[in-house]
Amino acid sequence: MPENIRVVVLGAGHMGRSMIKLLQQKAGLALVGVYDHCAARVGLDVRVLLGHEAAVGVQISNDLSALIQQTAPHVALQATCSRVVEAAPDIVTLLRHRVHVISIAEEMVYPACQSPGLAAAMHQLAMAQHVTVVGTGINPGFVLDLLIIALTGVCWQIRTITARRINDLAPYGPTVLQSQGVGLTPEAFHTGLVDGTVVGHIGFPESMHLIAKALGWTLDRIEQHRTPILAQHQRDLPGLTIFPGHVAGCLHTAVAYRQEVPVLTFIHPQQVAPHLEDIATGDYIDIDGEPNIHLAIRPEIPGGLGTAGLAVNLIPLVLQTGPGLKSMLDLPVPAAYLGDIRRLRHRQG
Amino acid sequence: MPENIRVVVLGAGHMGRSMIKLLQQKAGLALVGVYDHCAARVGLDVRVLLGHEAAVGVQISNDLSALIQQTAPHVALQATCSRVVEAAPDIVTLLRHRVHVISIAEEMVYPACQSPGLAAAMHQLAMAQHVTVVGTGINPGFVLDLLIIALTGVCWQIRTITARRINDLAPYGPTVLQSQGVGLTPEAFHTGLVDGTVVGHIGFPESMHLIAKALGWTLDRIEQHRTPILAQHQRDLPGLTIFPGHVAGCLHTAVAYRQEVPVLTFIHPQQVAPHLEDIATGDYIDIDGEPNIHLAIRPEIPGGLGTAGLAVNLIPLVLQTGPGLKSMLDLPVPAAYLGDIRRLRHRQG
Repeated sequence: MPENIRVVVLGAGHMGRSMIKLLQQKAGLALVGVYDHCAARVGLDVRVLLGHEAAVGVQISNDLSALIQQTAPHVALQATCSRVVEAAPDIVTLLRHRVHVISIAEEMVYPACQSPGLAAAMHQLAMAQHVTVVGTGINPGFVLDLLIIALTGVCWQIRTITARRINDLAPYGPTVLQSQGVGLTPEAFHTGLVDGTVVGHIGFPESMHLIAKALGWTLDRIEQHRTPILAQHQRDLPGLTIFPGHVAGCLHTAVAYRQEVPVLTFIHPQQVAPHLEDIATGDYIDIDGEPNIHLAIRPEIPGGLGTAGLAVNLIPLVLQTGPGLKSMLDLPVPAAYLGDIRRLRHRQG
Repeated sequence: MPENIRVVVLGAGHMGRSMIKLLQQKAGLALVGVYDHCAARVGLDVRVLLGHEAAVGVQISNDLSALIQQTAPHVALQATCSRVVEAAPDIVTLLRHRVHVISIAEEMVYPACQSPGLAAAMHQLAMAQHVTVVGTGINPGFVLDLLIIALTGVCWQIRTITARRINDLAPYGPTVLQSQGVGLTPEAFHTGLVDGTVVGHIGFPESMHLIAKALGWTLDRIEQHRTPILAQHQRDLPGLTIFPGHVAGCLHTAVAYRQEVPVLTFIHPQQVAPHLEDIATGDYIDIDGEPNIHLAIRPEIPGGLGTAGLAVNLIPLVLQTGPGLKSMLDLPVPAAYLGDIRRLRHRQG
């Protein structure tokens, strides 16, 4: 049997810990290291971090280069940030050491959208080093882009696409909740929008331009709107209480125009514990085309599980893909491989 | 601008004609030839065949080798048959001439299921000739396999998958309707099951083994059952009347076992014009796993449009894929590229 695929996880927050748990369920994958920039976590054993749910003891390091040299990983999973500008330095370090990178930084789903220069540089470096870098996640990365694109595969013509994701933010960590304005007063929410501390969903331009690329469309502009979702009743969660009239989340919408026609409309109310006010979660895609397609997934695909699932499930695909900066459009369709990943060589017809 | 992608269509029946129509809507693709083995169609102009819906005049040929030599196609779309044993001779001819092949023969979605020897031979020949051969279609090829596999991409664990496709057979030609027993008495349906003229859906083993391959599962056995769907009221269609008590279609089910556990259950009632008896079509996927996923597409993705759509939409993907016999698992996710396909070079990150 060949050796285990050696994996490091960057980020020991909610998403990183979730990936660590899933990695340990996977035959053929070995967690060999965890990196985190947070000083309070450095030197912690992942067994302690996960409340002894981890089978392997690995100490958390804040020196990425040293960690790579000590552990010689094949693949890194990055769960430290949302923006390409934040993600790129660690990605460059990993690529220089010939480590494949799967990032859940939202903008990495289509990094050329916000940071074309960094995207080109990462692509060139990955090509030179013969490794792959790709961004994924439940959204962007799946519900509002890859799943839509896959559905268009049956279509002759497409006029407009409308999609809604009504989801629960409870699985996410404090960084995500703060960026959605959760817990704020309406006034503080609007101040946060102005000063950039409240951003809502990160990923609409990435999803929309990825769809446009798949369809051969050029988008002229994208308009986004953010409004607070206010709790009608008190929402009590572990470690968090949302008072009536305070912000439970952010209703974020985006419309993409092509020749002044609104061709893509995404509606994404994100909030904590919507079930406490009888709001049902769900993912909805409506393609107005030839044929029309109306898809509903009820309840939503849970974002926390889904993002960690996609990141880990992409490992075998990344190992089989050619080098360079890839998108979900370039990889084969993701799948939950449940066997020993060392047995997975070629999946030829 | 590079030259058009030259395409030949094999089969001038319902599906072949549908592909020809779609090809003519696509910038960058040129229909250069049509092959059919039916003597009555040979020499016919596709403009006549399509009732002048075709923009290009191409005469139908029944000499595939001569057609290839005259037209020098890059890609062939095969819509002539359902079985690998029927599809393989023409595929071999095409591969020998270095033509990529996209087949909608149901068994070609995973040819190693029924014909491992032919699958291996086609793979070797395609590798040697540096071209690609792949099978696709709405089902098998998409609803009950690729779409399910894509959804598992978010999953940590999967216990069972149940899927239903309730569809309308009206878009299909007489070959498909006969194979479903449409129009027969219940007695003739059962006789047909015994003598092999009524087969129901072709593709359950292919879809199930493709899913199993994607998940790393080994299936022990697949059990299939076919029962007639009897019209309660008269169903009048163009050129076809189903009398009350006669067969409107076939309820075909399949269950795949893994270690004596029924892990995959597919329920597929196929019939003509179900709306005439207030039966709603739809595609349903339920994954019992971590997380659970419940997907509904209502109405069904129409099979005729969807199959032609997938076959044509796979052309740019096949041109960018490495050589050999591929499956939908090996290709990037399908998409309806609506621009000029000659502009589509690399879709790099």
